[in-house]
Order: sequence, then C-alpha cells, then structure tokens
Amino acid sequence: MSMVYVALISYTPDPERTIAAAARVSTSPARASQLMQKLSPQAVDRLLSRLISSGHLSPFEHASFTFAIEGISRVTSHQLVRHRMASYTQQSQRYVPLKEFSYITPATISAKREMEAKYHQGVRAAHHLYLEMLDAGIPAEDARYVLPQAGETGLVMTMNGRELIHVCSLRLCLRAQWEIVELFEKVKAEVEKVAPHLGAELKPKCYRLGYCDEAESCGIFPIAVEMGERR
Amino acid sequence: MSMVYVALISYTPDPERTIAAAARVSTSPARASQLMQKLSPQAVDRLLSRLISSGHLSPFEHASFTFAIEGISRVTSHQLVRHRMASYTQQSQRYVPLKEFSYITPATISAKREMEAKYHQGVRAAHHLYLEMLDAGIPAEDARYVLPQAGETGLVMTMNGRELIHVCSLRLCLRAQWEIVELFEKVKAEVEKVAPHLGAELKPKCYRLGYCDEAESCGIFPIAVEMGERR
Amino acid sequence: MSMVYVALISYTPDPERTIAAAARVSTSPARASQLMQKLSPQAVDRLLSRLISSGHLSPFEHASFTFAIEGISRVTSHQLVRHRMASYTQQSQRYVPLKEFSYITPATISAKREMEAKYHQGVRAAHHLYLEMLDAGIPAEDARYVLPQAGETGLVMTMNGRELIHVCSLRLCLRAQWEIVELFEKVKAEVEKVAPHLGAELKPKCYRLGYCDEAESCGIFPIAVEMGERR
Amino acid sequence: MSMVYVALISYTPDPERTIAAAARVSTSPARASQLMQKLSPQAVDRLLSRLISSGHLSPFEHASFTFAIEGISRVTSHQLVRHRMASYTQQSQRYVPLKEFSYITPATISAKREMEAKYHQGVRAAHHLYLEMLDAGIPAEDARYVLPQAGETGLVMTMNGRELIHVCSLRLCLRAQWEIVELFEKVKAEVEKVAPHLGAELKPKCYRLGYCDEAESCGIFPIAVEMGERR
Repeated sequence: MSMVYVALISYTPDPERTIAAAARVSTSPARASQLMQKLSPQAVDRLLSRLISSGHLSPFEHASFTFAIEGISRVTSHQLVRHRMASYTQQSQRYVPLKEFSYITPATISAKREMEAKYHQGVRAAHHLYLEMLDAGIPAEDARYVLPQAGETGLVMTMNGRELIHVCSLRLCLRAQWEIVELFEKVKAEVEKVAPHLGAELKPKCYRLGYCDEAESCGIFPIAVEMGERR
Repeated sequence: MSMVYVALISYTPDPERTIAAAARVSTSPARASQLMQKLSPQAVDRLLSRLISSGHLSPFEHASFTFAIEGISRVTSHQLVRHRMASYTQQSQRYVPLKEFSYITPATISAKREMEAKYHQGVRAAHHLYLEMLDAGIPAEDARYVLPQAGETGLVMTMNGRELIHVCSLRLCLRAQWEIVELFEKVKAEVEKVAPHLGAELKPKCYRLGYCDEAESCGIFPIAVEMGERR
Repeated sequence: MSMVYVALISYTPDPERTIAAAARVSTSPARASQLMQKLSPQAVDRLLSRLISSGHLSPFEHASFTFAIEGISRVTSHQLVRHRMASYTQQSQRYVPLKEFSYITPATISAKREMEAKYHQGVRAAHHLYLEMLDAGIPAEDARYVLPQAGETGLVMTMNGRELIHVCSLRLCLRAQWEIVELFEKVKAEVEKVAPHLGAELKPKCYRLGYCDEAESCGIFPIAVEMGERR
Repeated sequence: MSMVYVALISYTPDPERTIAAAARVSTSPARASQLMQKLSPQAVDRLLSRLISSGHLSPFEHASFTFAIEGISRVTSHQLVRHRMASYTQQSQRYVPLKEFSYITPATISAKREMEAKYHQGVRAAHHLYLEMLDAGIPAEDARYVLPQAGETGLVMTMNGRELIHVCSLRLCLRAQWEIVELFEKVKAEVEKVAPHLGAELKPKCYRLGYCDEAESCGIFPIAVEMGERR
C-alpha cells in the first residue's frame, strides 16, 4: 500500500503572475517590476493559456516549487532522481542507521494473502540481518546492501513549472509505475492549490500530442495509426 | 556610464531556512516539513556555515531568486546567458521595434571627451539608419543588424542559491568585464536583503581557493607560485 | 547574404550504433560492449525508429557532435547560446581586437539597393570609429560597444543527438529567424553525412505534433483548430 | 567483493586536440577546423595545462566519453545518477525478470566469515521469494521490491571531460563509498588510455583546493585550520 506523503514546503510566491510577467517582458517595453503589479488575474490567465497552446514553456521556469516527499520506496526514488532538471536532497542510508525499517508494499502483493505474509516476513528477516550486521561492527553503509529496495526514503525536491509539466507528462501516464504515478498525482494536487492554471496543465503527454505514443494505449487517446505519414 | 537596474521580484520565502531544512533531511530521520518549523535561526546559521566550509553546496539549490534586470547592454546579456544553470526571458528585438534607443556608454569612453562625443554621434547615426530601414519596409528583426551592441536590454532571470555562488565566484572577480561585475554587485545586494548569510558568500573564487588562479592578480590574493607542487 | 559555415570537426564514432546499443541495455541482459559488436545495421535502424516513434529520446544523448561554426552574426550567436543543453566556446571580442570587420547582411536589406548601400556605409563607419577608439587607448572590450550586432563571430559547439532533435524542432521552423534556420539546415546536412537516420529526424516540431502550434502556419501542417477539446 | 567492470565503448576521437582547438578559438582569429590540424601535440599539452591551472574548464566539455558499466550494485547506481550533467541508460528491473540474481558483497562483510555466510543466505532467500512471487503472477516491477539493494545493475553512461573532472573530484575522495571510488578509479584508467593529460587530472578535490574540506582528512592534505581567515 502506498504511503506517499507530499507537502509543498516552499514556492515562488504568486507563481502564475511571476510567469506571466516574465513572459510579457519578451514582447513588451514595460519593466518586469511594473508588470508584476499591473497584470490583472484575467491577463495572467490569458497569457498562461497562450504560452501553453503555443508550446512556449520557458517562462514557466521562473516559478519554483519545493516539496517534502516521504513514504516512497527506494525503487521510486531511484526513478525520480533520473529527472535531471531538478534539485534533490535525500535521506542518507550511509549515515543514518535504521533501527526501524519502514517499507512499501505493492498492492499486487497485498492482494494475494499468502504472498503478502511471505513478503512481510522476508522484509523483516532482511532488516533483522541488517541489525545483526550493525551489531557485528559492519558499517551502516555496507550493512544496507542486504536491505530490500522496498525501503522507505524521504527527500526534498525542488522543480520549476516547466519541468513539472514535462515530468508529469511522463509520470502521470499510466504506463509509468504505480508508485511514481501516485507521487506525481500528489505533487499535482499540491501545485493546484497555489497555481491552479499550472496545476491543470500537469497531465500525461497524450493530451498534448493528441495521440498515444506508447506501445499500448490506456484508452484516453488512440495510438497513432499512420505513423509513417504523420511523422 | 552604467545604468544597471536590478530588482528581486520574487524568491523562495525564508530561503535560508529552506536550505537548512533540506540539508538536515539527509542526515536526520525527521520530516522536512517539521524541520521547517523547528530549526532556530542559530541552527540555520550554523548549518549554512558548515555546508559552505565543506563545499556541500547542493542544498543551496532549493532557494530560488527571480530578478528583473534592466539597463544592461547586449554585450553583457550575451555574456550573462552563457550561464546555463538559470532561466532567462529576454526582451526581443525581433518583435519590439525600437522607436527610442537606449544604450550603455563605457566609462573609459566617457573619460575621453572627444571620443565620448563621437561615440554618441555614432550610436545615434546607427539608430537613425535603423529607423530609416523600418520605414523602407525592412522587418525589425533584420534592421536591428545595424544597431550597436551597446543597445540596452532587459530580462527576467531566475537563479538558485548554488548557481549564484558559482556565477558570483566568476563575475565578481575583477578580471570580468566592468558591466557584468556591476550587475552581480547589485544582484548580491538584493540577495543580502533577504538572505544575509547566502549574500555574504557571493564573492570572487579566490576567497574559496585561497589564491588567485588568473594570469594576473588584482591584489586580494597572491597568484599560486608552486602550481606544480600544489596541483 | 548568409555566410554561415558549419563543419563537423568531431563526433562519437558510429553514432547510431552507440545509441542503439545503449537503448538495448535497458531491456536486455546482454552487456553493452557486446551489443556494440553484435547489432546489425538493420537492427540499429529498427531500434532508432522505435525510439523516435515512442518519444524515448534519452538514448540519443549518447552520441555527441562537435561543430565549428563560422560566419554567423552576433544576433544569431546570442540566440544560439540560449540553448543550454550544449557546450559553446566562442571567439572573444574582449581579447581579440578586430582590425578587419566581417559582418552579415540580411537578404531583405540586400534586396533594396539604396538601403544596402547605406547599410554597408553605416557598418563601416562604426568599425572606423571602433579603430579610432582603440588608437585613443580605449580597451577593445569597451570600444566594441559601438560595433553593430551584424558582426561576424565564430564558435565551437557540441550538442548531443537528443538536443539536436529538440533544437532543430524549434529552429528549423520557418517562424525562427532566417539566419538560425540556415545555421541548423547546415548542421542537419553535416549530421546526415555520418548519421543518416538521426539526420532525417532533424525537422520542425510540427512533424511530431501533427499540427502547427504557432500563431500562423507556414503551410506544412494546419493550425490545431479544436485546441480546447484537444488539450 | 567488487565486480565493477568499466569499458570505454565510444568517445570523441582525438579528445585532447578537440578541447585545445575549441579553447584556442576563443582567443584566436583562426578557424576551428584549421586549428584541429595545425596544433602540435606540445601545443595541445601546454594549452590543457593552462586551462586546468586557471580553472577555465568549459572547453573540456567538447570531449565526450561513453562507458559500459557493469557489476555495480543498485546502491551505487542510485548514487551515480545523482550527477546530473551526464547521460545514463540503465538496465530496467521492470521489464527484465531476473532468473539469476547477481549481487555485490561489501568487503567488510566478506571479512567476517559468519556474517558473510548469513549475507549470502539472506540475499538468496530474498531472490527465492522474488521468483515465487513471479510464479504467483506478481509483475516483475512489483516483485522486485523484495530484492536487496546489493543487486547488480548495468548501464551506459556518457560524461564530458569537464564533468569527469568534477565528479572524480568528489568520488575519488576517500570519504566517498568504496564501490563508487572503485568505479571511478576504473573510469579514470579508461580515460588515461586515450586522453592521458585529462586522465591525470581526474583526482580528489583536495588537489585543487590545496587542503581537505571534509570533516576528517585521509592524510593527503591537512584540514584547513584558519577557515575564518581564509574564506
């Protein structure tokens, strides 16, 4: 079962106005500092729509969002940090010995009672051995090799609006693994609270393409049939 | 004469606490959201000092600063955007026809009265020709080829704390060109108002190296003499 | 008239096989070093097609291309270096005094004989003043403020295959300025010689989208009409 | 015991000449394509030394190195991919069911016979459970949650010369974990074969700083004592 916890701990105040003011600078002789004050909520909204529909996403980089993320497995943190246009500070297993061992259990395992029992048993046995190795003087950084990838980790992540749009286009796709989908559903929910227009744009890539480019479609959009003609 | 204008139009609120909370996550079992509340100003300060002295600068990426920059020449904006770990939205000369032409005059030119007069004359002649070309139906994006590089530009720039430390280490060095030195002196002054500890760390690279690695020293630190032995 | 000169001076040997071998590693238990030898040209081709059609472009990062670029204006080099996922080393105007002044003349100016004459005259006058300032002891880095943006520059640029696909999607669009379009047409021609499959994929973004997302279409693809429904 | 295997499968041919030619472009009116032919080995060597001693490392970005890496644990691959200025394609545990399970055993565990036996037993038990789950219809992407972090992985990594210098400055430091130290010792050995000057510059950060900035020194350089004065 997922235990993903996401909290937006800090962000560029008035993020959508900041994006709009930056965007206006490129085509207007007005000063950015004036634009920050003068743009009406309606003007901000119109500008954001136009940026999105024309694919001019770079102004979204000026709004930055910092999340506390907890309760994800190291399977998922390993996937997450592959997104390079972001900043991460992650809990270390080198320096923090894990007296308790929190971990994630996939729903497909919970669904099979017998497997679930064996899973918990297996994970606990691994953690038991880890503690035994610590007692025997093995450093935490080495003892952790025996720990399962299910182990919970926490991190602080900062991503700007443009990268959020990009990462969500990949990770809200149902072909992504369930845990990272859940993570970005919660990221999206947090962003929607403070930047509703941007939040609404956090969606799978098929919405922009108008078709599914995966091997198999989940049903939202059909797979492009005439690839050859089209591209 | 420089006309550089820098205004911090947006930034991660409580930037130093955000950095410290992120840094603590890596070695502490506490949740980042709790750390944001519990860290005392003294603890924040101590943590930042330790991060700087040990060169662990990645947590500084979690604080982001957005500046409105005006009154710099396109000589300088071309240098500026070479720093790739930042976001820029710049005033376009393709779509904004320049009825007026603001421009920068280097102090070495102002200092020679005769040259100064010729300089202003030369720049004005170029702008006059630009306007004539617009009248003749040349598109603004092409007419601008005749405009001098002294032409003023404006942009919105977002940079995180880590990149600010890096860029200032290069651009506050007196071997950098005067206009970009002035730009980053003003950037530093803006950062100091809201993040005094970080602001104080915005300084030339020689302070961290303990020696000057340029061909000639400005005098703050001597040039490393025993390069061979040292490195 | 454009004088753009592009030469591919170095690149990852056997670039398409390198991309394909990397891509195969992710789904195959075979070692990358073996894959480099075993993949047939047909298998390489099939793999590249699949990567493109599914939008899995990251393996294209493993092939890197280094170009000598000469004969572009500083208008264009300023646009070019905005692409941050690339490496640039550019000819400096700070340290290289320009005895001769090469520059670019836009075709829209050449087309109007009277304007063309005035343009050449204007540019030459500016360069003449530049030389006069050098003689008067003004440093080259300041004298250049009077030089027109038309001034020619040269640089070395390294870009990987993924970024080439991205940048060409923007800069081969006819809404980009003519000089940078020409630059990337020559970049594409160079890539096609050594990586024909990749070279063929260097094309405007509309080919992937299946529609034009600019304000006005050049005619290759129509503008998306039901934006609202679609996205 | 480490099983790290590193092979340089592709790289920019003549990497040091490419770097030197790019560097010369910035201060020379000559064309980069000519410089590639004209620079003598001695000139290349002198230029690289000057770039290093003055900290002008950006030209090193023009040489790119692609490695096949095998036999590292997922503990280490997770650390590795945190370096964002590089390209990675990693073996997937989502799509490749692991009939066999190769894994890494830290030397501190091998050193204690009793612990070593329990370690192998524990890892094997986890893999046995993994296979049982596959048989029970659990998807590979979920069954892998029970697998230990010791599990071996393979990947293709591309890094340019500048990033290699940076990453080695951190990962050849003896405060880094043994497995990633070994990985980069092998990376260094591979680079030395084809780019001896660059290879020699792949060393811990203390060599550039002239002091150790870690909490405790390994002995190569002393810890900076007068931090306050110095920085």
